[in-house]
Amino acid sequence: MQAEIITIGDEILIGQIIDTNSAWIAQQLNSVGIRVKQISSVADYPADILVALTLASGRADLVLVTGGLGPTKDDVTKQTLSAYFDCGLRRAPEVLAHVEAIFQRGNRPMLEINRRQADVLEKSEVLFNEMGTAPGMWVMHKDKPYVIMPGVPFEMKHIMRERVLPRLRNLEGRTPVWHHTLLTGGIGESFLAEKIADIEAALPSHIHLAYLPKPGLVRLRLTAIGEKLEKLKQETQIVADRLKERIGEHFLADEDTSLELLIRDFMKEQELMLSTAESCTGGNIARLITALPGSSSMFEGGAVTYSNAIKRSVLGVKGVTLEQHGAVSEETVREMAVGAKAIFHTHYAIAVSGIAGPDGGTPEKPVGLVWIAVAGKNSVVARKYLFGQDRAINIERSSMAAFWMLWQLLISEKDSK
Amino acid sequence: MQAEIITIGDEILIGQIIDTNSAWIAQQLNSVGIRVKQISSVADYPADILVALTLASGRADLVLVTGGLGPTKDDVTKQTLSAYFDCGLRRAPEVLAHVEAIFQRGNRPMLEINRRQADVLEKSEVLFNEMGTAPGMWVMHKDKPYVIMPGVPFEMKHIMRERVLPRLRNLEGRTPVWHHTLLTGGIGESFLAEKIADIEAALPSHIHLAYLPKPGLVRLRLTAIGEKLEKLKQETQIVADRLKERIGEHFLADEDTSLELLIRDFMKEQELMLSTAESCTGGNIARLITALPGSSSMFEGGAVTYSNAIKRSVLGVKGVTLEQHGAVSEETVREMAVGAKAIFHTHYAIAVSGIAGPDGGTPEKPVGLVWIAVAGKNSVVARKYLFGQDRAINIERSSMAAFWMLWQLLISEKDSK
Repeated sequence: MQAEIITIGDEILIGQIIDTNSAWIAQQLNSVGIRVKQISSVADYPADILVALTLASGRADLVLVTGGLGPTKDDVTKQTLSAYFDCGLRRAPEVLAHVEAIFQRGNRPMLEINRRQADVLEKSEVLFNEMGTAPGMWVMHKDKPYVIMPGVPFEMKHIMRERVLPRLRNLEGRTPVWHHTLLTGGIGESFLAEKIADIEAALPSHIHLAYLPKPGLVRLRLTAIGEKLEKLKQETQIVADRLKERIGEHFLADEDTSLELLIRDFMKEQELMLSTAESCTGGNIARLITALPGSSSMFEGGAVTYSNAIKRSVLGVKGVTLEQHGAVSEETVREMAVGAKAIFHTHYAIAVSGIAGPDGGTPEKPVGLVWIAVAGKNSVVARKYLFGQDRAINIERSSMAAFWMLWQLLISEKDSK
Repeated sequence: MQAEIITIGDEILIGQIIDTNSAWIAQQLNSVGIRVKQISSVADYPADILVALTLASGRADLVLVTGGLGPTKDDVTKQTLSAYFDCGLRRAPEVLAHVEAIFQRGNRPMLEINRRQADVLEKSEVLFNEMGTAPGMWVMHKDKPYVIMPGVPFEMKHIMRERVLPRLRNLEGRTPVWHHTLLTGGIGESFLAEKIADIEAALPSHIHLAYLPKPGLVRLRLTAIGEKLEKLKQETQIVADRLKERIGEHFLADEDTSLELLIRDFMKEQELMLSTAESCTGGNIARLITALPGSSSMFEGGAVTYSNAIKRSVLGVKGVTLEQHGAVSEETVREMAVGAKAIFHTHYAIAVSGIAGPDGGTPEKPVGLVWIAVAGKNSVVARKYLFGQDRAINIERSSMAAFWMLWQLLISEKDSK
């Protein structure tokens, strides 16, 4: 069974927002054995929506539509859907009651455009939206299911989880697809490919290998398509084990995870605490760690020390160190790491200082120069990096490099006290 | 002139990565008077790529393709393009020299798959990629331009900026499109619509108004399509001025900017310094501020105080306050804000403490409860929020609410010493 996702909204086509819904929907569909054939984004324009629906219905067995269901009149979606499905709109009483309750709770007067949120396609089943005022709709049209959902991500996710996925699990004709992802670190895509070329060449035709680089890491994704899910799982596991053995020290995890997650789980299990001292990453390392549920069990706190004065007063970096070597130097990041470890009373501390750009570079210390130190149980390691000109990329790469250094120190100090 | 963007890659269709390239490309195309008609994402599968190219060539005057140009053999794009454009591949000597130089600099041996990066479509012009090994290509096919670029975002952006946009500016038939965005705060989408209904109803048919909510804010986007760009600018400016007057205190900015940017510019101009004390947002507020170039001129530093011990030792929150009222309380965030202001010697300080979830909630203090305080020149304001169940959304909303509180305090204290 193949699906197509259609996202509707001028804001996507003029680049004002990034479509994050499609990736999430695709993951969910994959998990129930439905493959996504195409994702199409079109404008809030009736003819474009009609053409997209018509083409999608020819390509796919299931069509999911998001966007264009908000209260204001830039949303032409519902009228267009009414034309496509050749049916009128009805006001759904249970939705109207829900919308009225939301406005009552918020003590806000109700407007006619809010009431119109309760209008649904006559031949649809309502996919009730507890999280907002725009309901989803399930329409069977010429024996094909269409799922219509609002574009607000958390409302769409709620409707998918609670209303759509349970129905999709009952559909016939889903083709089992299994993805098995291995995470590798410290090796480039081409070298990895060379190292495992013979294993890749020997793969049966229903198993496909893809290389997916992300900052500092490369994911290897095995995709198997076949009749029985259990068999696919077994087959990819055998290939994964062979790859793992070959990849050796560069193997990181048997799933598509992140270094932050690996670090959180490892430190939690080993009862180790972490702190951070960030200059050029400006809190990004702390927020990546604290974005993870349960991080409070391994993260004590951190300091964002943007100015030299704060590096001294909060972290205890010596004035003479800053004067002689500067804020972006091995000496300073080492003192920052040691300072953070002491002040926050943790087993490990990460420190980063660099020139993120676009300003602040000099011939000796150009934009992109970053020093990172990690203080551990018994040692402090420091390393210099030279990234590029882009501020956002420098912050991202510095954060990933810091996690990689921490991970390596954690592993090497695993059995030491 | 209308364009279509095609992104190629299984990783998009299984939801492993989010397509951020299309939004960026769309913005750039808009800026040179080219509208995006559709964005299509298809798999690394020859038939799907061929169909997408064929349909796009029927809909659009310009087709841009990204993705599928990496070194490993999961990339079938180049072979498929060769079939679509009915021409072979040639090895481009200038690209080969560039790839060889990259490998020499990195002291890495060169593999045949790396050399193949220098193969380009015979009838293409090379769009040289200084940032990576995969070149872009410009192909004229049946009088229509096609732009082929790698999918790595910073390589694609480099090729667009340096090689593609200068060429697009020379194309005939571009239709001037002008977007004028107003940013509003503290008012919901429906109320805003009601407030400006008559202005919207009186718009001429070539000017369109759209409502684009983002956390805590609503953008109003005027889009004008016509013959002369200068005339469109004037016309939208007149409407914008009328809207601004009507929106009154809820008007924030005359452009699509962010609260962080407004705060950075305001504080920089007024020579005010900011610090942060974050618990549940875990550094996210600091990193949003420091993501902005030039933030060092108004941001001194911050503390991420995840544990109670650190709230006491670093920020000076009293033990008795934490015992009597708990970490998530008005009293604690007020002391955190006052503490950060003193320790970092700043004019303003933001403090946040809450229960981001999924764990840690109680009947009295449920997941989603967040207290925020802002300490300013003369006063400390604090406010309680009740967000939802989702950790990531709670962190995002807390950050935006904190910026909104800071902004209001900055404005109200503007003329005080």
